[in-house]
Amino acid sequence: MRAVEIIRKKRDGEELSAEEIAFVVREYSADRIPDYQVAALLMAVFQRGMSESETALLTEAMRASGDVVDLGALDGRKVDKHSTGGVGDKTSLVLGPAVAACGVTVPMISGRGLGHTGGTLDKLESIPGFDVRLDLDRFKRQLASARLAFIGQTRSLVPADRKLYALRDVTATVESRPLIVASIMSKKLAEGIDALVLDVKTGSGAFMKRLEDSESLARAMVSIGRACGKEVVALITDMNQPLGEYAGNAHEVLECLEVMKGRGPDDLRALTEELCAWCLLLGEAAGTLEEARDLYRRSIESGAALAKFEEIIRLQGGDPAVIEDYGRLPQARHRREVASPGDGFLQSMDTEAVGLALCVLGAGRETVESVIDPAVGMRFHKRIGDSVRRGEPLATLYYNDEGRAQEAARRLVAACRMGEERAEPPVLIRRLIRG
Amino acid sequence: MRAVEIIRKKRDGEELSAEEIAFVVREYSADRIPDYQVAALLMAVFQRGMSESETALLTEAMRASGDVVDLGALDGRKVDKHSTGGVGDKTSLVLGPAVAACGVTVPMISGRGLGHTGGTLDKLESIPGFDVRLDLDRFKRQLASARLAFIGQTRSLVPADRKLYALRDVTATVESRPLIVASIMSKKLAEGIDALVLDVKTGSGAFMKRLEDSESLARAMVSIGRACGKEVVALITDMNQPLGEYAGNAHEVLECLEVMKGRGPDDLRALTEELCAWCLLLGEAAGTLEEARDLYRRSIESGAALAKFEEIIRLQGGDPAVIEDYGRLPQARHRREVASPGDGFLQSMDTEAVGLALCVLGAGRETVESVIDPAVGMRFHKRIGDSVRRGEPLATLYYNDEGRAQEAARRLVAACRMGEERAEPPVLIRRLIRG
Repeated sequence: MRAVEIIRKKRDGEELSAEEIAFVVREYSADRIPDYQVAALLMAVFQRGMSESETALLTEAMRASGDVVDLGALDGRKVDKHSTGGVGDKTSLVLGPAVAACGVTVPMISGRGLGHTGGTLDKLESIPGFDVRLDLDRFKRQLASARLAFIGQTRSLVPADRKLYALRDVTATVESRPLIVASIMSKKLAEGIDALVLDVKTGSGAFMKRLEDSESLARAMVSIGRACGKEVVALITDMNQPLGEYAGNAHEVLECLEVMKGRGPDDLRALTEELCAWCLLLGEAAGTLEEARDLYRRSIESGAALAKFEEIIRLQGGDPAVIEDYGRLPQARHRREVASPGDGFLQSMDTEAVGLALCVLGAGRETVESVIDPAVGMRFHKRIGDSVRRGEPLATLYYNDEGRAQEAARRLVAACRMGEERAEPPVLIRRLIRG
Repeated sequence: MRAVEIIRKKRDGEELSAEEIAFVVREYSADRIPDYQVAALLMAVFQRGMSESETALLTEAMRASGDVVDLGALDGRKVDKHSTGGVGDKTSLVLGPAVAACGVTVPMISGRGLGHTGGTLDKLESIPGFDVRLDLDRFKRQLASARLAFIGQTRSLVPADRKLYALRDVTATVESRPLIVASIMSKKLAEGIDALVLDVKTGSGAFMKRLEDSESLARAMVSIGRACGKEVVALITDMNQPLGEYAGNAHEVLECLEVMKGRGPDDLRALTEELCAWCLLLGEAAGTLEEARDLYRRSIESGAALAKFEEIIRLQGGDPAVIEDYGRLPQARHRREVASPGDGFLQSMDTEAVGLALCVLGAGRETVESVIDPAVGMRFHKRIGDSVRRGEPLATLYYNDEGRAQEAARRLVAACRMGEERAEPPVLIRRLIRG
């Protein structure tokens, strides 16, 4: 089998065979096919696409490039949640503890923020001492004892994805549906889960801006998951404005602690409840979605979710005192309000631009090498549909560098569109996709 | 300027700027952009195409990557001919001497055979001692003294093309019109010519199988040539069957010597005459095409073309005795006839398959590393439209290896399609494209 012939087939829009897909993934992982051939193939895939069956074969071949976490010795179902990413998207920090507190194991292998989106690992690391670099043995032991652990990708899980993702990043082939699906699903399949709840974002701050693209991505992931023997459900949820009131790493931890204390903003509470309910249903901790929602709410009211989070912070080396004393989280030196330049109703936000303004502030990464500042962030005072008077604050910036704050403020104002008519607030949970 | 942003633009079908194209060619030539980024860009160009203006910019940027032969000190016009390649396509060996004998300088920088097509350098090297590896100084001195020299690509001419072509070959991006045009035209522009005659093949043995594709390639090359200040004419000529009776390196030298002696097959004579006439017209050795044809015929009848070839063979270290004694050319040890399996008329030949059968015999290269056997070849006894009786020879194979001969014979028979009706012989010269 020759790589150039496989490139030629895909170049001409033909379907690749199981053998061809497995050959490329295996030989590339072993450094026996050079980067330049895979780069040409990735661009051909970008242009020509892949069928559902090719995507499933790619997912499986990538998963097979490394270890799979064996959680067979643990009793009960193992369920994870994955979000396609957005701004202020912080549900994992509540969901993990709440679901684990209800008796379902959550083997959560998360990512870091990149571009306009944040990452669970970065948020957790704003808790002083919190260590996400557990090896797989410790990961399994903690899952056995506490039903929850938060870690990052390890060298041995889906090494093909690490190589492919790095190559996609420098060859402008990230935004390809089959490549996105295979990258996400191969990593989730390697976690040793029984079921998966997907939070597929849609809107101006999502990777997929149009509902139909988000739907088709969700359908593809659900069907790949089923093809690989997992139960998968996808919620398509709104990302036309930041989720919750806060964005920025330490600020998001604070907001999640508020939710676990029974407070916090409505949208974050509602989405977290729905995602948790699906995890609990697929995790067989509840017989119906309504029972599952009750179970979640009791985990919050009883303090069980918060107690679980405290246990996890302790187990992973963090300072549990942050739970009661938010002052122990990293603090920005300055704050300023960003005033509205006009009157009217907030019509829309370019939420990707808001995410990039957060990057400018230092909360996110422009490249994988960027160092983030856990203390900086934003609090949003207005949501789509709200009336705004000129001079009224749109947001508060928490910052450490005046120049960056000015640029972030400029971008934030530019991202907000005002109008005279009251805009309809976006519906938070748009669709449910089941296999 | 970042390579990944340039890839992204072309990926999305946008037009690249002069600066972006020059950046990629310059930085890639200097090894400052990695192969994998250029591979992705090449595949994006393959899928999305390039405008005429982008192609001209690419051609110019590639030419500018190395030296340009300065023939300004030589009097008179400098004209070259380039063919897009085929089977038995040997006109250069007659055209060079005939045009030079008529007083026009021919700085001929040729290629080697690859895949199903032959190459001028390989054919010349079947003359014992003939050396095509002159450096540019000797090339210029020989052009000054003899008006003709046959050499191969040198390191210093269009180094960007050497790097790009090698990458295209392994990434299935050879067959892209803008990339083909830029590769051919950048090398021809670097030769220091005033005018160029293009022989763009069309049909089953051509790179472009369909007339409209050949036409569009021809138009693109003519217009790029004009944009770069050169006079360019393209003939679109038939390659639905081999040109002449012979294919194989020493056999093609022999057939060209026959043409220079006033003999040889009609099709080869007719095409050579027309290509030479255009070279002489653009070279200002004649005022009309009819005068130019006369001039060519007189160079053959007078023996001037043959004498020029003898001079060139001597100057480049070859054995001029081959001209009178074909036995001094490499000889295959065996010959066999390939019998027709049926009666009827020859309807068509898959001429690319015939070229690949020649590769099997050893006359061509499957990869750039293949070693060719100059002695092996084929003589074709039937042309499209000829009647054939079962058992009558379709061709004679000249070979050194029994197994290869059997495989080549099998492929040759499979390439010939017979039918009961007399097929129309293809028209040799299909179109003329001028700027």
